[in-house]
Amino acid sequence: MTNEVVLLDTYVSMFGMRARIALAEKGIQYEYKEEDLSNKSSILLQMNPIHKKVPVLIYNGKSICESLIIVEYIDEVWKDKSPLMPSDPYKRAQARFWADFIDKKIFDSGRRICSTKGEDQEAAKKELIESLKLLEGELGNKQYFNGETFGFVDLALIPYYCWFPTFEKCGNFSIEAECPKLVAWANKCMQKISISKSLAEFDKVYEYVLKVKQRVGIA
Amino acid sequence: MTNEVVLLDTYVSMFGMRARIALAEKGIQYEYKEEDLSNKSSILLQMNPIHKKVPVLIYNGKSICESLIIVEYIDEVWKDKSPLMPSDPYKRAQARFWADFIDKKIFDSGRRICSTKGEDQEAAKKELIESLKLLEGELGNKQYFNGETFGFVDLALIPYYCWFPTFEKCGNFSIEAECPKLVAWANKCMQKISISKSLAEFDKVYEYVLKVKQRVGIA
Repeated sequence: MTNEVVLLDTYVSMFGMRARIALAEKGIQYEYKEEDLSNKSSILLQMNPIHKKVPVLIYNGKSICESLIIVEYIDEVWKDKSPLMPSDPYKRAQARFWADFIDKKIFDSGRRICSTKGEDQEAAKKELIESLKLLEGELGNKQYFNGETFGFVDLALIPYYCWFPTFEKCGNFSIEAECPKLVAWANKCMQKISISKSLAEFDKVYEYVLKVKQRVGIA
Repeated sequence: MTNEVVLLDTYVSMFGMRARIALAEKGIQYEYKEEDLSNKSSILLQMNPIHKKVPVLIYNGKSICESLIIVEYIDEVWKDKSPLMPSDPYKRAQARFWADFIDKKIFDSGRRICSTKGEDQEAAKKELIESLKLLEGELGNKQYFNGETFGFVDLALIPYYCWFPTFEKCGNFSIEAECPKLVAWANKCMQKISISKSLAEFDKVYEYVLKVKQRVGIA
């Protein structure tokens, strides 16, 4: 069991992708266990009894839950390689602020774009674009959110990129037309193997959403 | 301006109280600026343009927003006195998990207890008690959430204590009857001057809620 790293995850989960990228950036070997969220495993229920959600990182038999907390934990334990958090406390607070902003704004807008129609969907599209424009403004002309190197905010946001085509198909709009600089940043991130191999294929995300829509009767 | 610390806050804000407790624990002198949330100051809008919420910590002219991020920042910058975060990465991840749990569960249940009636209010009361019981279970027989000393999770939760009487009056129920050990923990916390002087008076919280209910027409 010593030094064993296990990730309970679901292929299309943007939260799981964060953990996958962090593990890849640090070069950590781990066992990947795919969870079927419509039929959760006993190990998931045991390791995350409070939220019963993926991802869960299990290290030496102890579980860590919630994606950003997992990423900070990985960064703190495997601190010698590819630091994800800035070392300056103020910059660290700023990184946490924007990662928290992504959690508070992007997921919910995206969910509503995929699950509603008409006015509700239009409102969700507007909100998503507004939030992405704020992120684009924060990125500015920098390479990455923290400057020259890939870090915590990039990691928090980039998994949504493989959901963009699904948002666009469901909502019939173009994110690139609204936020070209942000899409250029995403394309640059995708050149990193730690990211491209951690993100789901665009088509698989769309197939997953179609399946869920069919199951809950909103196809 | 050098080393100047300013807190933009609102007296009854449980999020603001977190910043106040952290500043008191560290013995930091600061200027307190009360914000009227129905008429926000230009400095608040300028210092927290994204969320436009209190608390905002301003240190040397730069702003830090979101209460738990502020508390971590204070703990990292003034690290020599009264550490709030555990030094072990796993314990730190656990502390962040429970603080995040408090943010995700307690505020919203409390808000709904104060602003709804009938079935909606009953559901909110049930959720609040369930969440508090989970926290009580996590506390167990320890003095504080992290063991022997007051820390991050205690700090994240204790401001809700001065809202308990308001929740109880609005919902006509007793939190102490359901969670006696948690209330005992809160009473012990209140013996610390850093906490008792940072929390709002119980009556002032209730007066504030009554005023808001009148203003929005649900009194």
